[in-house]
Formats: sequence, structure tokens, C-alpha cells
Amino acid sequence: MTTILRADRMLTPSGEVANAELEIDDRGRIAYAGPARVESVVTHDLAGHALMPGLVNGHTHSAMTLQRAVSDDEGFMPWLAAVQAVEQGLTRDDVVAGLELAMLEMIANGTTAFADMYHWDEGLLETVQRAGMRVLAAPAMFTHEAVGFPGVSPLNGAQTLDYTEQLAERFEGDEQIKLAYGPHAPYTCSPELLREISERSQRTGIKIHIHVAESVAEVEQITEQYGNTPAKHLDAFGFFEADVLAAHCVHLTEEEIEIYARTGTAASHNPVSNLKLGCGVAKLPEMLEAGVRLTLGTDSVASNNSLDLFEEIKLATILHRGVRHDAAAVKAADVIDIATRRGAEAIGFPEAGALEVGRLADIIALDLSTTRATPMGSLVSHIAFSASGEDVRHVFIGGRHVYAAGQHLTLDAADILARAAASAARLRG
Amino acid sequence: MTTILRADRMLTPSGEVANAELEIDDRGRIAYAGPARVESVVTHDLAGHALMPGLVNGHTHSAMTLQRAVSDDEGFMPWLAAVQAVEQGLTRDDVVAGLELAMLEMIANGTTAFADMYHWDEGLLETVQRAGMRVLAAPAMFTHEAVGFPGVSPLNGAQTLDYTEQLAERFEGDEQIKLAYGPHAPYTCSPELLREISERSQRTGIKIHIHVAESVAEVEQITEQYGNTPAKHLDAFGFFEADVLAAHCVHLTEEEIEIYARTGTAASHNPVSNLKLGCGVAKLPEMLEAGVRLTLGTDSVASNNSLDLFEEIKLATILHRGVRHDAAAVKAADVIDIATRRGAEAIGFPEAGALEVGRLADIIALDLSTTRATPMGSLVSHIAFSASGEDVRHVFIGGRHVYAAGQHLTLDAADILARAAASAARLRG
Repeated sequence: MTTILRADRMLTPSGEVANAELEIDDRGRIAYAGPARVESVVTHDLAGHALMPGLVNGHTHSAMTLQRAVSDDEGFMPWLAAVQAVEQGLTRDDVVAGLELAMLEMIANGTTAFADMYHWDEGLLETVQRAGMRVLAAPAMFTHEAVGFPGVSPLNGAQTLDYTEQLAERFEGDEQIKLAYGPHAPYTCSPELLREISERSQRTGIKIHIHVAESVAEVEQITEQYGNTPAKHLDAFGFFEADVLAAHCVHLTEEEIEIYARTGTAASHNPVSNLKLGCGVAKLPEMLEAGVRLTLGTDSVASNNSLDLFEEIKLATILHRGVRHDAAAVKAADVIDIATRRGAEAIGFPEAGALEVGRLADIIALDLSTTRATPMGSLVSHIAFSASGEDVRHVFIGGRHVYAAGQHLTLDAADILARAAASAARLRG
Repeated sequence: MTTILRADRMLTPSGEVANAELEIDDRGRIAYAGPARVESVVTHDLAGHALMPGLVNGHTHSAMTLQRAVSDDEGFMPWLAAVQAVEQGLTRDDVVAGLELAMLEMIANGTTAFADMYHWDEGLLETVQRAGMRVLAAPAMFTHEAVGFPGVSPLNGAQTLDYTEQLAERFEGDEQIKLAYGPHAPYTCSPELLREISERSQRTGIKIHIHVAESVAEVEQITEQYGNTPAKHLDAFGFFEADVLAAHCVHLTEEEIEIYARTGTAASHNPVSNLKLGCGVAKLPEMLEAGVRLTLGTDSVASNNSLDLFEEIKLATILHRGVRHDAAAVKAADVIDIATRRGAEAIGFPEAGALEVGRLADIIALDLSTTRATPMGSLVSHIAFSASGEDVRHVFIGGRHVYAAGQHLTLDAADILARAAASAARLRG
């Protein structure tokens, strides 16, 4: 049984298609993407909508929805301390509620896959499976801090490494769930731990997800401690020989951008979070120019405070133009590509991210009956500058309909909102 | 007959009120704003909502909704030429449709008053009256270009001055409609015309709405032509002795910021437009510090491409933090105050803009049942960082209910969308 969608417009790698049709086969793959065919039996008539690939959140800590607005006016290091203080009382149930709350918001805003660093275990990953999303999950690790919940033996860095590999084995071949090693950052993980992780990663093929060069404070601390800026420090012991997703990268030097390009290191651009915490403005145009692999991310809601990638797309497109007085600094089409195809590739789902035959059917439908879509230029312009997460009316992931006409089909919204509110009240009360 | 609203939270000048009540008298003024009173007969039970003042768009060209996405990747001067090319075929019916389309979008996003520079006449102003909004309308004027439509005698600069005064007289005392002189910019209006406008303004009390120091190109052109940067050029012949609303002001020097503070000139901060067109980042922290009167604006959708002031509030709060590496650079509460109370004052509605007794009852209600509001910190944090225009469910202007549970009560959305789409198709076809 195949699924056939019809819509007014569709964004494909070879351009925009009007009066479009998309067929999904019974393995959840795209079997056709092109102009409407006369003989088709349409299963979902999405007249008045546009189809585009599901959005890929290239860096977040999804369960931190519970820390929304915990610290709104502080710089990076005091903010981090405030967030970690709230986490002192965190239970596993809280993490479940926070993760499900994040998935409610991500799906409703058209996000179909995300790269996450936080507490992860088998049950949490099964929660993502049931919701229908894709995740690159990195259990967070620190050198001097064990990670776990009350009533559970916390794991230290080396134990988390082993545990990450066990989870990777458990979900081997799963099309929704991928694991990554999650060393937090160069300033919270020792060179020894980081070197071991990189070596293991090169053996196992498990990616690494880490924060790099996020704040001026980090750059100063690492430079003082090791005599190198963060990315050079990591490169000095071969860290980037592994497949690394490095979040933020606000303060890379030109030389470090070249290191990323040479080693195939992916940088996740998180403009809202970087501005809000006073971290700075990453060199996106230089990274694009150098051919660095890129993703677009919201970071957690504790520093955003929402999970709407349409907002990040618009900001990533316009921010660098303004800062450089150059309206050609960043093209909307490039940013959309980063938020879909390139992001999917960088976080371990290279078969998702675009509407073309053979790819995984991760598809969202945008309502075009809004004032924001009247009049419309190109679909690229609409997505980058006018559309909002609220315009998302349908979400398919691997062909599975998870959000229909604005209603969640895999998550119980009322129940999740109540549990998340109760968890947050206890943690913050 | 009074109207009494009850809501979970309310933003007032003296802080946030929980379990709140607001009473509107039969003149459309706020008669009470505080904690719920036991004896009240509630007319609108807005449980699950927060009340805040209606947002004030401090600079736009609303009818330019028809030019949405006309030029998305060009710098300021080529963009302006592309927009003006589309306007060659503009008829009065087009302007009506574009204005109504903008009001649909503004009201739905919680905007209750706006400062506008474009084509204006009595009928267009009556269209705003019927929609229920407040406008400071500035008929645009240029020195070397007459303004008008096919079949109507176009008006030159001096004629537009007279016409603006006639309209001001026609709407004298109106609580919704105010007029401003609308000289376009220092690079399109001669010093002679600008001097005359300032002198007339000082006599008549009619405000002036103008663009100043928007782009690097403008600064270079004015400096070359007159030997001064734009604001100094204007100040040199006493322009700012009048009550001036100056849009953008991206490239003010410290000395020019002092001129604004000394003369009581209001600057309209339009961060999305300034970034998108590659114009730059205005010195908002310095303007705040110097005590410059401020408004927040979207500019037209031709350079935005939407009309959602929640987006501008978030960006204005975080942008300067990131650019300066200082999370304390701009406070959320200040930006919300600019987008409401200070904005209302600067565009000629000093009795609107805040929920306190005696003020005009311009009120919006935000849905708090969303994931974005779960969990919530302060209402200020929610408004600045999490909320979106889509959260607006009710809008009252002067006590008149113009938007109820997401439905327009004063505008026929389907009819307007159809007319605007037809106008845009003809103009751009």
C-alpha cells in the first residue's frame, strides 16, 4: 500500500515543483517526487499546502525544555551554573517528560530529526521510537562529574563510553535511533578522555557530539590551560580524525575553519542561543566558503527559548548580512539546505533530508492559506523569510503520519504538558 | 456597560499580576487593572491566557505586503529600485488590498497601532478606522517625484504637505487616526523641502516620519553631497526642532545619538529589515543609555518578510548581546516597553501602550496552553523569548473586540486574501 500526497508546491533538490505529487512506498521511502500524474490514486490531498523535507535540529538538549527561562539575562558561565543548579533534583521521569515536551514542540514546528546531548538510556530512546522521530543521541560525559539520577548508580566518563557503545549495539541498524559519544566540552573533559573517545570513535564508527568554542570565557580558559584555542587544542591530539559534530564554533579562527574543512568536522550553527547568551556571531560565511560540513540547531530552550527551526533559518540567513553590511553574505537556499539535507547527513541520517526518489520519506506540509504566504515569491523565500513553525500542518517521518492537520498522532499532548509542568514546578520550586 | 476580562496573568507597568482582572469602561478606557475582585461580573473569562498591552509597530509601510519577496538577496539601493519598479503599476485598489492584508496580519499577531509611511487618503484612513486599528499615517513625499495613482493627479512635495494638513484637520481629535508629514529620506528630499516641513511641523504640531541613516550607501551619499552624515546634515538646519520619528538610524555616530537625546527625536529600531538588507546593526544599547525615545518596527514585508513584532522583540533583545559579547547589553523588559508604552507615546498615542487605569484599552490575550509556555518563567521572559504572534487569541483596541479566539471581527479575511493575491499577481506578473 503506497501513500500518495498532492500539494500546490514542493521543494526538491532540483528546484521547486508546482502542482506536485509525492509517493511513499511501504518501506517509508520516496518512490516518486515530481509533477502530479494523471493516473495516481491520491491518499492525501494537500491542496493549499507546500511540501518540503522535514527539518533537522543539528544541536539540542531536548529534555531541557524543563529549564525554559531559568536564566534569561546572564552570560554563558553564570547561565550554565544556574541551569545545572536546577538539574540537581532531576529524576528520570523528569527527563522523560522534558523529552516528550520537546518532541511535541519539535514535531509541531516541522522538525523530524535531532542531534541531542543529555541523559540517554534504552527507555528514553524507545520513547523517541514511539514518537516516530529520528535522533542522534549522545549520553553526556564529563571527566570530573558522574552522570545519573537519584536511585541509579551514576556513570563516570569511561563508564558512559562503554554504555554508549552498548546502546549503539542495542539499536544497530535502526533507522530512527543512532548513538554518539557525548563529551561535553574541552573545558569539562580532559585531553586524555577526549583522546580515548576519538580513538574509540575511529574504531567503532560511532560519531562524537561535543561543544567547541562557544564562549569567549571558554576560549580564554582553554588558551590559558593548554596554550591553544579550543579547536587547535583538540586538533593537536588528533581528536578530529574521528567523525565529529561540534556545536556552536562561534570563535573559530581562520586556521581552525581550515582544520574543520580538512578533517570533515561538522559545525552546528546555533544563532539564537549564541546571541542570547552573549557568546557572539559564528563565521558562517567563512565556514560555507571553506566547505565545512554544517548543521543548524536551536540549542536547548534554556538558551533560546523555543524549538522552532524556521526562526533559526531566518536568523542564520539575515544575521551575517547585517553584521557584515553585505546582503549577499548568506543565501537562503544554502541555509535551508543546511537545515535539511546537509544537517541530516551530518547527524547520521544521510538518506533523509531531501524530497527525491529513494530517500527516507521525512516530509512536512506548510499551510499556504495564511497572510504570510500572500503573496508568495519562491518557496525558498517563503521558507526562509516568512514561514513560521505554526504553518506546519502535517508531518510524515519515514512515511509514518505523526502530525495531521495540527494534531499529534503519536504523542498525548495534554498528558505530556501536565507531566512536564509538574516536573518543572518541582525542580524550580 | 463595562467589559470585564479575567486571565491567569497580566503585564502592568508595576509588574506582573497573577489571577488578573481588567475592566474597560464604555469610553474604551481601562477602569481597573489588578487582581481578580470577588464581586465582578466577568464578561470574558480568558482562563489559560495572559493579558498584555497591544503591540505598537513603530515603522512600516503596511500596503507593501503586495511586494513581499520581490527582492530577497539584494543590498539596500538595488532592493529599493526593485520595489519601486513593482510600484509603477500600483492603483488605489491595490493599496487598499495591501493595507487590509497588512492589518489582517498585524491584528492576528497582536499589533494594535502602527506608524506608516506610504500612499494615504481619506478613504484609506477610514479603512483603518473600520478595522479598529490606530495609525500614525504619513503620506510619503519626495522632492523630485510626484506621488499618486493612474487617473489621479499626482501630488508633488509641497502639495503633499498641504494635503497632509487637510487630512490632519479632517481627523482632528480622532482617537484612532493621526497624521504625520512623510518626507522619505535625506537622500530623496532637498534641504529646502525638509526645512519647510520642520518649520510647518513646529507650527502645526503634526509629527514628522522620515528614514534616516538606514544604509552605508545613504551615509556615503549624504556625506559626499552635504559634507555631513545624515543626522548631522538634518540637525544643521534645525530639522529636529520638530517632533520627528526617524526610522532605522542604523549608522548614527555618538554625537548624533546625543543630538537625538537633546532634541527628543524618536528612533525606530527595525532589526530584521536592517539585517536582511545588509544595512547593519543599530546602536540600541547606546540609544537606550542616552535616553533616546524609541520605537520597534518591522519595516515593510518587502524587507522582513512578515509583520510579527514578537520576532522583532526577541531579535532586538538578543542581537546586541551577541554582537557585543555581553548578555546584559539589552534587557527584555526594556524592549517590551519600547514595543508598547514608549512606542505608543512616540507615534502619537500616549494614552495607549500600558495596562493601567485611565489608558486606552488596547489589550491582547496570549494563549498559555502551548508547549512554548510550558514551563513558564516570568511573563516578560515569555513575551521576549518564547511567545510568537500565533499565540495571540484576542485583541481589543479601545475596548473594541476586533479579534476573538483567532477570528477577525472587523475584517473579511477570505475576501482580503483574494483581492491582495489578485493585485500582487497583476503587479508582479
